[in-house]
Amino acid sequence: MENLIELFGISDDLVPQKFKKGHILQSQGDVNSNAYLVKNGLLRSYTIDQKGKEHVFMFAPEDWIISDIESQEFHHPAELYIECLEDSELIILNRKHLASVELNSQQYQQRLNKLSRRIAVLQRRMIGMMSSTAQERYEEFLVYYPNLVGRISQRMIASYLGITPEALSKIRGQIAKNS
Amino acid sequence: MENLIELFGISDDLVPQKFKKGHILQSQGDVNSNAYLVKNGLLRSYTIDQKGKEHVFMFAPEDWIISDIESQEFHHPAELYIECLEDSELIILNRKHLASVELNSQQYQQRLNKLSRRIAVLQRRMIGMMSSTAQERYEEFLVYYPNLVGRISQRMIASYLGITPEALSKIRGQIAKNS
Repeated sequence: MENLIELFGISDDLVPQKFKKGHILQSQGDVNSNAYLVKNGLLRSYTIDQKGKEHVFMFAPEDWIISDIESQEFHHPAELYIECLEDSELIILNRKHLASVELNSQQYQQRLNKLSRRIAVLQRRMIGMMSSTAQERYEEFLVYYPNLVGRISQRMIASYLGITPEALSKIRGQIAKNS
Repeated sequence: MENLIELFGISDDLVPQKFKKGHILQSQGDVNSNAYLVKNGLLRSYTIDQKGKEHVFMFAPEDWIISDIESQEFHHPAELYIECLEDSELIILNRKHLASVELNSQQYQQRLNKLSRRIAVLQRRMIGMMSSTAQERYEEFLVYYPNLVGRISQRMIASYLGITPEALSKIRGQIAKNS
């Protein structure tokens, strides 16, 4: 919470709101200027392709911020659904509100840094999707999300990795055998 | 050039430097705090996987900025090579230099906006890689890079799309037939 005040220079509207497991905060096609900071719980964002297949874009456990940047920043229809995978307490960050706040240089630098980190995560994930094996991607997933394995289904992890649940099961067997 | 002064608040060190086609500005493993703004010419960034196969991460024609954010912002060894695909004139933006400049809020907002746009491009590309057909990805490529088709090889476009040159050739045939 303190970080947030430091980062955005705001202390109002910071009361966490509670949402139930399964609640959809945003659907594909919505224009939504909110980003969600997870105080407790777990969110995911995902897309559904033209054949009706789901693809997990990211997970957001405690202290992560999740949004569809196209919608949040540029008012385009969102590509991503955002869903509560557990009962969650969220701080809703609204762009219009944030834009009206006068920040000092240190706060601006922190925001620039936060955006750069997000680019770095996406860059690494994109490079991984192009050039790493599924096993390497799974090992990277474990580093990024060390506490998620017991909290989400194998099906969702497989969807995040872009592989079938059967392929993930094989990889997990392989890692267990080698360790 | 004016945009750059506006954006970064600097006017020194902005003399473009010339590089020949084929020049490698950065290799995988380098720690490089530079970003490159293309005045004239064309760059690409790419990675090489453990089997020695190249994967194009992005192209940067005129007015684009290209860097490896892991290396530029966080001093990690770069994942990406950056190469001149044509003789190019580049403005080299150095992070250490940029960090020392005092910006006003409008300049900060412009930088935040620029980073947000980069996240949006990466988000869309990542979603496309997960959930779009190769033909949809090629059509999106044509929108992002409208003037590149004649300037780069089919092999490189295929590598950017994550498909074989043969598959790209089929898609182009299909599009030609339908138009």
